[in-house]
Amino acid sequence: MTSIDTEAPPAVEPARAIDTFYRELVDRHPDIEALAPASGTRRYGFDAATAKTAEAGDGKPGPAVVFPASARQVQQVVRLAAGLGISVVPRGAGTGLSGGATAEANQVVLSTERMAGVIEISPLDEVAVVEPGIINAELNARLEPYGLFYAPDPASFDISSIGGNIATNAGGLRCAKYGVTRESVLALDVVLADGSLVSVGHRSIKGVTGLDLTSLFVGSEGILGIVVRATLRLRPIPVARRTLTAFFDSTAEGAEGLAAITLSAVRPAAIEFFDTASLENIDVHSGTALSERGAALILIEIDGYGIEEQASDLKAALAARGGRVTVESEEAGRRLWELRRSGRGFPEGQWFIGEDIAVPKSKLPSVYKSFPALEARFGVKISAVSHAGDGNLHPVISMDIKPGDDPAHPPASLQDAATALVRVALDLGGTVTGEHGVGTIKQEWAALELSARIRRAQHAIKAALDPDGLLNPGKAI
Amino acid sequence: MTSIDTEAPPAVEPARAIDTFYRELVDRHPDIEALAPASGTRRYGFDAATAKTAEAGDGKPGPAVVFPASARQVQQVVRLAAGLGISVVPRGAGTGLSGGATAEANQVVLSTERMAGVIEISPLDEVAVVEPGIINAELNARLEPYGLFYAPDPASFDISSIGGNIATNAGGLRCAKYGVTRESVLALDVVLADGSLVSVGHRSIKGVTGLDLTSLFVGSEGILGIVVRATLRLRPIPVARRTLTAFFDSTAEGAEGLAAITLSAVRPAAIEFFDTASLENIDVHSGTALSERGAALILIEIDGYGIEEQASDLKAALAARGGRVTVESEEAGRRLWELRRSGRGFPEGQWFIGEDIAVPKSKLPSVYKSFPALEARFGVKISAVSHAGDGNLHPVISMDIKPGDDPAHPPASLQDAATALVRVALDLGGTVTGEHGVGTIKQEWAALELSARIRRAQHAIKAALDPDGLLNPGKAI
Repeated sequence: MTSIDTEAPPAVEPARAIDTFYRELVDRHPDIEALAPASGTRRYGFDAATAKTAEAGDGKPGPAVVFPASARQVQQVVRLAAGLGISVVPRGAGTGLSGGATAEANQVVLSTERMAGVIEISPLDEVAVVEPGIINAELNARLEPYGLFYAPDPASFDISSIGGNIATNAGGLRCAKYGVTRESVLALDVVLADGSLVSVGHRSIKGVTGLDLTSLFVGSEGILGIVVRATLRLRPIPVARRTLTAFFDSTAEGAEGLAAITLSAVRPAAIEFFDTASLENIDVHSGTALSERGAALILIEIDGYGIEEQASDLKAALAARGGRVTVESEEAGRRLWELRRSGRGFPEGQWFIGEDIAVPKSKLPSVYKSFPALEARFGVKISAVSHAGDGNLHPVISMDIKPGDDPAHPPASLQDAATALVRVALDLGGTVTGEHGVGTIKQEWAALELSARIRRAQHAIKAALDPDGLLNPGKAI
Repeated sequence: MTSIDTEAPPAVEPARAIDTFYRELVDRHPDIEALAPASGTRRYGFDAATAKTAEAGDGKPGPAVVFPASARQVQQVVRLAAGLGISVVPRGAGTGLSGGATAEANQVVLSTERMAGVIEISPLDEVAVVEPGIINAELNARLEPYGLFYAPDPASFDISSIGGNIATNAGGLRCAKYGVTRESVLALDVVLADGSLVSVGHRSIKGVTGLDLTSLFVGSEGILGIVVRATLRLRPIPVARRTLTAFFDSTAEGAEGLAAITLSAVRPAAIEFFDTASLENIDVHSGTALSERGAALILIEIDGYGIEEQASDLKAALAARGGRVTVESEEAGRRLWELRRSGRGFPEGQWFIGEDIAVPKSKLPSVYKSFPALEARFGVKISAVSHAGDGNLHPVISMDIKPGDDPAHPPASLQDAATALVRVALDLGGTVTGEHGVGTIKQEWAALELSARIRRAQHAIKAALDPDGLLNPGKAI
């Protein structure tokens, strides 16, 4: 282990500390792949939420970027950075939607790209042991021959990494039945801010020795430690799957119809709700004609044993609420889920903000009812697709860019409308972020939700594990 | 709010501080039910693991005991105790098996007995909001008319409180399918060590605003805060349930047969495995004749849709491994589950230690294989029933009390055998406690499992939330 004098950090002029870091890294650890801080590294300082800023390409310097290939190399990077007082920003696939992976020019971006292996698949323990950089969909492709799957399925599953999924406690479509990422993470190896490598959790569903640090690391957005290995819970691929659609005559009727599912005995794998505007958006972008079938859609996947009986019970429940229910063919079902996952395109010539609020699921109709007044008040359009099984909405608040407008500067009323909608969710007992995380861009909204005492407790826990604030500072809390 | 001078605690002679606490409590908060510290309160200082000590009844003084009836009264108790530097031991129903609720004469026991209400049951949100003192079975009785149930079912569900279940992250029989307590706790109101009342979590399955303090409080054994309200996730009562038995010719064959379930597509609600000695114990105590049907038993409950197909798939899978499989009648099934939950009696005239180890479930056969050598080495008998779906075993290590032995002083070899078995679990990648918690009596075993760095991190988190160490000191970590 390289010895770093952490007690007396070298007296480096702050602005050049990052250059010193890079030079020392190359010198001491030539086996660690790295990029020197330069304007070309700026793109590693943005995620999917902040990438537009990166595209501006203004020639500013970017962070140093390291690509460790092992837990030991992660330790070496963290120790070197800690010794110089430089903060480290962990980075998965950069697909985050809250600015959680954004980095400044004086920081080190630690990319997990080169740590993307599947270390073990154990059908008898129903676990996979993986490195953080592996892409969610790649893992599932590797699991399929075993008849197993990893359940958490954020919409980004084709491009997002397991490490990023863990950092954000990623949700997805199947959470109401199979849980969020936290429910599928059994154990973690983590490099802490002092460079030590620790193992937390168990290779079993049960295990209560001490505080549950595994759950604490999940969703902590890289501020408490860097995940270098994860033991994930797997499940058997269901014996059957079916897609059902239920079309309604209005957004309100569809939203009210969701209660029929809750009050039935069926627990679908996924329940997605599309309001009128969302269906119209999809039709415009995908050349479909969903709007001809109704003004609101509940798209459902059921799975498991007794599939025909499940379908029959759901069909009866939804029809009683005015739904026009169809059990879709396999091909039609696949197409509908593709549209759900990819069909959130927006017309050119619009400003928009995408949200991630969640509410107690009985309150979903109330959220949709709030849209018209907000639209009128702020001069915006609002549409929303929901993961209705867990009350998580993804509203899109948009505004036309008119001739003479500067596309780079949306009017303040767009952001004001978004904040007003967040307040609607909070007033209904909900949250500002169901599954994307706070990152940098939801800090103000998080302050609307969490009390000062809770925020103080969160900062105290951060300080307990990272007293110098070196890991992903300014994120999550 | 009562004003307490926390900056300058009264100069009370330590041995009398608890008397001062009681006097001031009665004086300032006469509405809070309380018992003065006296020998009669000793029984509030023990749980089910340590109660034998209490029975000795040696006339020593016991703790002060308070029975707050509201969150506000909990705050008042905590603030008063904090002001006097007295520690507070939260207590549910006292059914814990790890000494987590034990209290000394100079401490305050805060019982949640009087906070046992169901505040709300919401079928549309699938949640119940409850006070901590409610008994698990009582909650489920209240939920049944709604067609809903609360899944976590520790064997003590008839007598243990939800608050205690949360404090220990209690497991039970149904965890492999429905998760442990943590997966059913959505939000908590908690009184912190400084007397502040905070709300954490969400009334929805999703919600990622800041660090996941809800999960951190679950399983923290009362050392981070006192739960005064919980929002619990409910589930629809399954449309069907069946009990299956699979008898095998030996413990080894039965334990190996468990893999057949894992490799099938069926996920039972409960999978209990009984070795030969456990079956014989039950027969002796319950007058049953299970041993006549085989030398090992896998007892299974399946539930949900497609019950006949599930039963058929499981039957085929287990028969292929040599199991003699029966789909039991409803009455026979009920009787078997009663035996499982209550039939862990032991003959008089034995010393015994009950354990709670868990291992990766593929390693269950290895644990059972380790018994004969340990029995020979330490002169003990070992039997174990397992929650096989999650690798959690409850071995009983026993030793005959011979004429002339002092029943109050078991030989050291009994404890040595227990520790040796714990080491077997750890060597197999397991844990010292699957669902009972560390409390006071598993502190040494916990140190075998957790690294010094992890323990330091846990103590740092404790200090971050309770800097003066007032809440349930000496437990959990």
